[in-house]
Amino acid sequence: MRYTIEEIAAALDATVLGAPGLVVTGAAEPAEAGPDDLALAMDPKYSDGLARGGARAAIVWEGADWQGLGLEAAIVVPRPRYAMSGLTRLMDPGPEIAPGIHPSAVIDPSAEIGEGAAIGPFVVIGARVRIGRNARIANHASIAEDTVIGDDALIHAGVRIGARVTIGDRLFAQPGAVAGADGFSFVTPDKSRVEEARASLGKETKAVNASWTRIHSLGAVEIGDDVELGANSCIDRGTIRATRIGNGTKLDNLVHVAHNCLIGEDVLLCALVGIAGSTKIGNRVVLGGQVGVGDNLTVGDDVVAGGATKILSKVPAGRVVLGYPAMKMEQFIQASQNWRRLPRLMEDVRSLKKAVSNEDTDD
Amino acid sequence: MRYTIEEIAAALDATVLGAPGLVVTGAAEPAEAGPDDLALAMDPKYSDGLARGGARAAIVWEGADWQGLGLEAAIVVPRPRYAMSGLTRLMDPGPEIAPGIHPSAVIDPSAEIGEGAAIGPFVVIGARVRIGRNARIANHASIAEDTVIGDDALIHAGVRIGARVTIGDRLFAQPGAVAGADGFSFVTPDKSRVEEARASLGKETKAVNASWTRIHSLGAVEIGDDVELGANSCIDRGTIRATRIGNGTKLDNLVHVAHNCLIGEDVLLCALVGIAGSTKIGNRVVLGGQVGVGDNLTVGDDVVAGGATKILSKVPAGRVVLGYPAMKMEQFIQASQNWRRLPRLMEDVRSLKKAVSNEDTDD
Amino acid sequence: MRYTIEEIAAALDATVLGAPGLVVTGAAEPAEAGPDDLALAMDPKYSDGLARGGARAAIVWEGADWQGLGLEAAIVVPRPRYAMSGLTRLMDPGPEIAPGIHPSAVIDPSAEIGEGAAIGPFVVIGARVRIGRNARIANHASIAEDTVIGDDALIHAGVRIGARVTIGDRLFAQPGAVAGADGFSFVTPDKSRVEEARASLGKETKAVNASWTRIHSLGAVEIGDDVELGANSCIDRGTIRATRIGNGTKLDNLVHVAHNCLIGEDVLLCALVGIAGSTKIGNRVVLGGQVGVGDNLTVGDDVVAGGATKILSKVPAGRVVLGYPAMKMEQFIQASQNWRRLPRLMEDVRSLKKAVSNEDTDD
Repeated sequence: MRYTIEEIAAALDATVLGAPGLVVTGAAEPAEAGPDDLALAMDPKYSDGLARGGARAAIVWEGADWQGLGLEAAIVVPRPRYAMSGLTRLMDPGPEIAPGIHPSAVIDPSAEIGEGAAIGPFVVIGARVRIGRNARIANHASIAEDTVIGDDALIHAGVRIGARVTIGDRLFAQPGAVAGADGFSFVTPDKSRVEEARASLGKETKAVNASWTRIHSLGAVEIGDDVELGANSCIDRGTIRATRIGNGTKLDNLVHVAHNCLIGEDVLLCALVGIAGSTKIGNRVVLGGQVGVGDNLTVGDDVVAGGATKILSKVPAGRVVLGYPAMKMEQFIQASQNWRRLPRLMEDVRSLKKAVSNEDTDD
Repeated sequence: MRYTIEEIAAALDATVLGAPGLVVTGAAEPAEAGPDDLALAMDPKYSDGLARGGARAAIVWEGADWQGLGLEAAIVVPRPRYAMSGLTRLMDPGPEIAPGIHPSAVIDPSAEIGEGAAIGPFVVIGARVRIGRNARIANHASIAEDTVIGDDALIHAGVRIGARVTIGDRLFAQPGAVAGADGFSFVTPDKSRVEEARASLGKETKAVNASWTRIHSLGAVEIGDDVELGANSCIDRGTIRATRIGNGTKLDNLVHVAHNCLIGEDVLLCALVGIAGSTKIGNRVVLGGQVGVGDNLTVGDDVVAGGATKILSKVPAGRVVLGYPAMKMEQFIQASQNWRRLPRLMEDVRSLKKAVSNEDTDD
Repeated sequence: MRYTIEEIAAALDATVLGAPGLVVTGAAEPAEAGPDDLALAMDPKYSDGLARGGARAAIVWEGADWQGLGLEAAIVVPRPRYAMSGLTRLMDPGPEIAPGIHPSAVIDPSAEIGEGAAIGPFVVIGARVRIGRNARIANHASIAEDTVIGDDALIHAGVRIGARVTIGDRLFAQPGAVAGADGFSFVTPDKSRVEEARASLGKETKAVNASWTRIHSLGAVEIGDDVELGANSCIDRGTIRATRIGNGTKLDNLVHVAHNCLIGEDVLLCALVGIAGSTKIGNRVVLGGQVGVGDNLTVGDDVVAGGATKILSKVPAGRVVLGYPAMKMEQFIQASQNWRRLPRLMEDVRSLKKAVSNEDTDD
């Protein structure tokens, strides 16, 4: 693809300095940029890189001496990270999926697929499925019976959408994502050891687990608009009602959302996050990589949990947490430093005991 | 589907009150139930929901005033959670897979498939595979050569069963599950840094890792009866002998079981659990979400590990553990509270040192 | 397959004792070995097993009385674990994929595939893909446009290689592995709560997360020679430049490598490891199962991190770490023991305070 500096600046709602008609074909880091690349140099630390690389045009920081840096054209943006969004959207070629429906796809005659679809080889679409306009569905995706998907979906290779799942507009589903597996829910005829252990906080229990009987998942999964499902991520269906994922929420790779969970809007779940059954996550929550949340809990709106936080009890809205178990972030940082000092602390206490006991003896 | 209250009660071995012939078509939470739904109101806390919803029939708690709650029929069950099992099994429509073998499936002529099979599009079944009766195999599943699977298997879309794996009756495999990948086993010509670090408990080591050479996996995977494999879960084959999963054991989504592991019977492995190589897990063990177990360890029968427990050494039978490293649950809870109090404790010790030192000086 | 003891010894560069022409058909643990198995008895602890089993030949420890143990032939190796590599490579039958290209595969006419390929059913290969010699590609694998893969690749069922990915020689990709999903990168128009929380170390923030806008991934994934990708593992593409995996690096099942990461050579990433965006991992690093590494960090060469270590800050080269947050392994072990002793320590400090305060009062 070819883009003029003017076109790029317009897409970013940004200011052009220098030659607006200069053409670039891609973006690159400043030191690696060639003459046809737009260098991304949004910070003064990239001055050296710009000098080493061969870019003629760049996105630069505010106040940069673009001419002194040897550029013929520059784009200035107020919030560089946000500008990356517009720039990369403009330049992303997207996956190559031929327009129309590949002859090898197996699509039930009762399925309704909107205009503008591109459906790849070996896609399977079940009975009574409804898919909106401009769907791009890559090879090997499976969409089971009675599922409804909105407009402008991009579904990558090998995605599995289970029966009766509903999804809003503008879905991004990365390869191998699974929405609508059965929930992990089993029960014993009598009270199980797990139930007793929870009730007694782990004190010795007398129950013996018998064989587990399956509770089937009759509920579906309901997913809002503008949701992203990461590669090999999994969302289980609910037991009676649906598991829900709110508008604007993004799941990273290998995330697990269990049955009956209610995930709010504009939530970020980073890679390897696991959320256990029937837990409620508020709006705008951000859970870092490998965060775990126990079952039947509530995480309030705007909570931020740092990487690997293990949430074992309710978290009030707005809190920033870290650790296992989760605590306020500053508390975790301080306590971690102290943890490393524990050996010396224990030594101090031993000395104090000796000193005080000697005094006692001395008296 | 349509069910009379009498049919449902019979399936649950439960008592009917009121109109046994009343028909329902599904189950719902009390507040969301319509006139054709069976409301699930097994606890007095659902009284208000029942009043708000439109159900004419419900499963109710023992002693409920079902007529006062406006119901025409009620089912009373002694252990509500267990009743969910029978009810959901009765009402689960299961995946729509047309009877017989889809013409696009590639099945080796030497494979033997029992009566009553329903095999979907693009399924691949290798040479000499034997599958029992009533198998339901959804689209895109792959079953490699010499694998044996028992009766009544339900294999969802995109499941990968490797060569020479053996599986008992009543398998449930969720989408994307992998049984029989190669083990993660590599070796260096000379002793590696990891081997030295383990031997010295992390003290500085002199070894330098050279390139890793692969130890191939000659063993298979042996899976018992009544096993469930979660979405995108992985079980690796053994090095010389098989990795084993006992009867009645259930794996949740994204669980990893490494080469040579021996997992007992009626074990629950919740989502994102990882069990490293050659570890033995006893019978009736329950590992919560994100639990990790190191390699070459033994976890005794009936152990329960809470969410995110990291098991780095042997756990005796019957223990309830939590934490990183794993400790008794009550110990973890107490120590976690104390951990948060560490800053104050350190302050106290500083004051004590000062006080005692002053006394010493005063003397 | 049939192997003489002499052939096996030659493959291992090892010494034969006894009958070099004796034939075995497989390998087994000593106690389970039959007369056609090579028993693997590299340690004196296997003496009893050898006696109980029926092997006529074995790999034995140095100095073993192989005749006294009832063997007709024995192979002696200096480093048994390393010998496993040669032995298992020799005996691994590999997956059955018929030579040539299965007629159901959909291969773009512009793709170039080297000599000796075996490509299974339903494989999809995109435009302009180049694959080297002797590729074995199992059923259902997808290789997207413009991807380049070297010689001798073994790609298992359902692997997804995204567009423009480059991979060296001798790739092993286990079922369901994904290389080249989009990075998880989102931005808000104004500074987000996460950005503020990081800057203030978790102190209360005023920002409110608005909806997330996607930063698309224009970069690819570059993978070196001799790399292994575990089952359902995921590597995301870079934002502007490629995510890189060095020569000889091995990823276990369910590993996540985020956008822009630079992973060195001969690295081992065990199951469920997650590495956040733009992090650099040095050469010969070993990360145990469930290890997490935060974004924008550097982990130096030869670092070893034990299972479930959570790396939240830079780790210098050569360090052996454990814990959350990561600390030196010996420090973790000592502090963990102390952690369990915290309750008693607090009791001691309470007593000391009382004692010292009494003294003060007494004075």
